[in-house]
Amino acid sequence: MKGRQRETVKGIRALLAGEKRTIARIISAVESEDSEEILEHIFPHSGSAYHVGITGPPGAGKSTLVSAIAKRLLGKRKKVGIIAVDPSSPFSGGALLGDRVRMTDLALDENVFIRSMASRGSLGGLAQATKDVALVLDAAGMDYILIETIGVGQVELDIAQVCDTTVVVLVPESGDSIQAMKAGLLEIADIMVVNKGDREGCERLLTELKFAFEMREQKVGWDYPILKTTATEDEGVEELVVAIESHASYLSKTGRLEDERKKKLLLRIHELIEKRIRFHLKENIMPERDIIKLLDKMYERKLNPYRIAGQIARRIIRLADRRFV
Amino acid sequence: MKGRQRETVKGIRALLAGEKRTIARIISAVESEDSEEILEHIFPHSGSAYHVGITGPPGAGKSTLVSAIAKRLLGKRKKVGIIAVDPSSPFSGGALLGDRVRMTDLALDENVFIRSMASRGSLGGLAQATKDVALVLDAAGMDYILIETIGVGQVELDIAQVCDTTVVVLVPESGDSIQAMKAGLLEIADIMVVNKGDREGCERLLTELKFAFEMREQKVGWDYPILKTTATEDEGVEELVVAIESHASYLSKTGRLEDERKKKLLLRIHELIEKRIRFHLKENIMPERDIIKLLDKMYERKLNPYRIAGQIARRIIRLADRRFV
Repeated sequence: MKGRQRETVKGIRALLAGEKRTIARIISAVESEDSEEILEHIFPHSGSAYHVGITGPPGAGKSTLVSAIAKRLLGKRKKVGIIAVDPSSPFSGGALLGDRVRMTDLALDENVFIRSMASRGSLGGLAQATKDVALVLDAAGMDYILIETIGVGQVELDIAQVCDTTVVVLVPESGDSIQAMKAGLLEIADIMVVNKGDREGCERLLTELKFAFEMREQKVGWDYPILKTTATEDEGVEELVVAIESHASYLSKTGRLEDERKKKLLLRIHELIEKRIRFHLKENIMPERDIIKLLDKMYERKLNPYRIAGQIARRIIRLADRRFV
Repeated sequence: MKGRQRETVKGIRALLAGEKRTIARIISAVESEDSEEILEHIFPHSGSAYHVGITGPPGAGKSTLVSAIAKRLLGKRKKVGIIAVDPSSPFSGGALLGDRVRMTDLALDENVFIRSMASRGSLGGLAQATKDVALVLDAAGMDYILIETIGVGQVELDIAQVCDTTVVVLVPESGDSIQAMKAGLLEIADIMVVNKGDREGCERLLTELKFAFEMREQKVGWDYPILKTTATEDEGVEELVVAIESHASYLSKTGRLEDERKKKLLLRIHELIEKRIRFHLKENIMPERDIIKLLDKMYERKLNPYRIAGQIARRIIRLADRRFV
């Protein structure tokens, strides 16, 4: 046990030094089941990385944009972590060969660390795992963590909660803006980007977005930027990086950065408690051998899962309340 | 209270009779916070609907296929419930006008009930809400419930757990098959469909899929059908309906239908317990006013959320164990 602790301390030191192989090893460890002890050691060293979410529909060119942003940040002597949650991202190996070669180029830079997340496991698992990986990269000394997600579902809404700034990327193709609004993307956007700005329909989409943001309740002091980029040509990327920096400075000046990060910590505690209780429920409260009879009766509609779950939950809560309230 | 119970009983009767306005009203009630009492009343009347998931990438023509399947089933005098979880589905109002007009046509049939789910709320909320809505439609006497999801994330993997048969729809466009494999779609498929079968690349995709399924571990007795459809022309749809019926009969004969449905009930109980505990945690265990000091210290990295969450969870579990183990 002491040997293991020494091992952990050594690992943490190498992590803080930003050693790529250690980062990769610790991320793999964190993705395995019982990772909270490691995360507990890592947490005190986190808190300095700025988290940027880049989300949008498939084919919006998010990865190319992420690469372009990363290169600009590297030029400013920043360390950049990239997490690809999008299964179609070339970072996660899901796109055409040409894209992947470009990414490999970036991955060789010693100030970049790229990690792709597999979209497997139980619901909630992916978003939580992304937060854990971001924590590791934060402690490893990254100045920026760029998190690329495919913006069509709920996972990204949940991942947006870990980001300080969320950039939503659209393309001029028809329907995108309507679908984006439906998916709640505009509500989570701090910065809007219309990528592939050389394509037809770009100006119309920009106008639509301006209109949509005028309708939206404004946060005091933040004027949502709506930018045009052509990431493949590196056009408009510097303006985007400036907009991200402006948003960071706005959050910092108004005290919102601290407030929002505290809210995220509260959410994280809830998630962690739930995760442990969920694990315990599956392992102990109702092992399959005990429940077969119950399931038979439920299948025959003689017993009611809603009632049984309610009873068990109420008992757990009642017992817990005696201690905590 | 007695009046309310009478009201509920009356509502359940109208629901069982399949009254469209009652179905809509009860679904709205179920989507609100405290729905478990209603679901408890509905559950005993469920269990006869056959659940079919239709999933695939955006633009695969899932909605057109769902419409075509629904029309065939209506022709066989079946009652059909449709749940659209895909934000780009015309059922949920997210597609082009032409599609929507076609859907409206279907919606007017007295043996069809269509419901679209908003992709909002907390993670896990959407998949759970979909299961609740399916339960209502089941009790309302639907023979088939068709659930359309956009197959790129985890929500659909979770929704697949409510379906007896999962149909994965792809189109011949390049990259789709690779992306589908990445997203774990092939693993949840009982039936594969290549839609827009008149397009270039269709035969190549069919060959790829056949190869992929040969690699995959087979369920004894089920030969995964790989079908070609052109939903807009109603081509291949009858074959698809026959494949769904064959899968249903395979599950039923081998006892797998019962086994799988019991597993789903077990999962549902776990989810319901977690949901209640989650709700309770947010409301009672750590109200914001009590936790502000804690959050301040965590923000300063003097306290550790992983340790705190672990402590609270362990105490809850220890108390719970005295009663249950």
